[in-house]
Amino acid sequence: MDMNFMLELVEKGSVTVPSLLIENYHGIGLNEQECMVLIQIHSFLSKGDDFPTFDDLASRMSFDETACADCLRSLIQRGYLAIIQKNDRKIYSEAYSLEPLWNKLIRAAYSKRVSKVSTENDD
Amino acid sequence: MDMNFMLELVEKGSVTVPSLLIENYHGIGLNEQECMVLIQIHSFLSKGDDFPTFDDLASRMSFDETACADCLRSLIQRGYLAIIQKNDRKIYSEAYSLEPLWNKLIRAAYSKRVSKVSTENDD
Amino acid sequence: MDMNFMLELVEKGSVTVPSLLIENYHGIGLNEQECMVLIQIHSFLSKGDDFPTFDDLASRMSFDETACADCLRSLIQRGYLAIIQKNDRKIYSEAYSLEPLWNKLIRAAYSKRVSKVSTENDD
Amino acid sequence: MDMNFMLELVEKGSVTVPSLLIENYHGIGLNEQECMVLIQIHSFLSKGDDFPTFDDLASRMSFDETACADCLRSLIQRGYLAIIQKNDRKIYSEAYSLEPLWNKLIRAAYSKRVSKVSTENDD
Repeated sequence: MDMNFMLELVEKGSVTVPSLLIENYHGIGLNEQECMVLIQIHSFLSKGDDFPTFDDLASRMSFDETACADCLRSLIQRGYLAIIQKNDRKIYSEAYSLEPLWNKLIRAAYSKRVSKVSTENDD
Repeated sequence: MDMNFMLELVEKGSVTVPSLLIENYHGIGLNEQECMVLIQIHSFLSKGDDFPTFDDLASRMSFDETACADCLRSLIQRGYLAIIQKNDRKIYSEAYSLEPLWNKLIRAAYSKRVSKVSTENDD
Repeated sequence: MDMNFMLELVEKGSVTVPSLLIENYHGIGLNEQECMVLIQIHSFLSKGDDFPTFDDLASRMSFDETACADCLRSLIQRGYLAIIQKNDRKIYSEAYSLEPLWNKLIRAAYSKRVSKVSTENDD
Repeated sequence: MDMNFMLELVEKGSVTVPSLLIENYHGIGLNEQECMVLIQIHSFLSKGDDFPTFDDLASRMSFDETACADCLRSLIQRGYLAIIQKNDRKIYSEAYSLEPLWNKLIRAAYSKRVSKVSTENDD
């Protein structure tokens, strides 16, 4: 039994992806490639790396770095992703923020819920 | 504060996706569309629904049902997905199994590890 | 390499526990034993088993079945857990619901947030 | 709708706890209080904070700092937790490691599996 390999399996574990994203990405205007880029960024963020390079992202995907950069630019322009300034003990740095994405997903889920409730009340 | 909506957010929660898949899907020959289909199936399985319909899957994705069926067929033929017979108290039914996927991912991670360890020993 | 064992490790995977619970159980009046019982119930629920027996729960814990039943009764009386009637295609059955718990946790997190925001505005 | 609060709910999200721990902590000799301390440490580690203070831990639990320190010391002595030296760009620091815990859990799950398989073969 290769204990070190099994430790790696258990410790690397899982990425938790909000069900909101898995169930509604298409509803808010994303395709599968864009959704996977956002899942990759979420995975880096949740492990404490808040500004992965294009290469970090592209090495796990079917794009090259240029296509990856294009995809990120488009996601930022269309309001799914933001780059924010961080200020950690006077050291400034940049970080990705998925707040715009969660914002859109929450609004979409809320509209769906409101329209569902009002339909039920009409019955 | 719309408590029911917030309960929904917390209760629906997250899907846990093994890091092995997020980090290595491209390495084992999958593209983003295929990876997202497998994440959808994993999400249904982990909530106890082990045979989602083409419509269940397609309604969350950028494909229609036909394209979804084609994608699943291809994943099965190429050995990433299986359909198994379940026997629950003498009631037979079909279910998707992701065992072939995890199998490929574990083998890929293991080979990577072995080659890394042997490179380190060469130094 | 024992592939079946590793498949088991990956497939069993992880239980996702809302951070709200991990960070605030003590703040809403639970001790560690009660929190672990609720995590066990959450773990069964999220795998689709919504009415685990006292024995299912006790076999994973440091209590016997009687202590487990006492603990559940107390959690229900104090409003952290509920037993609900389910109606699945005309078959009635009972199920645990953690809605009261999430409700308390959301309210607690919301009060904390409101008081924090109002303190910041006072500065 | 308080969007900021809902963003907080979604972004804070969930802690993924390996099922191995939830299902087997008692089997490897831990009680509920010890298991919850280890879940707290796991939660800090997985968010990139690898050396939470006694106060960080105690503030979420039913213990005070002294009891928390005693509990950690006991977990280290009994081989469930370790403190390791980290060397990040020549800056040395200390960090908790849960490797001893995962190690014990994997061995326990493996023994259970082997004895189950051999019993089945005896039938």
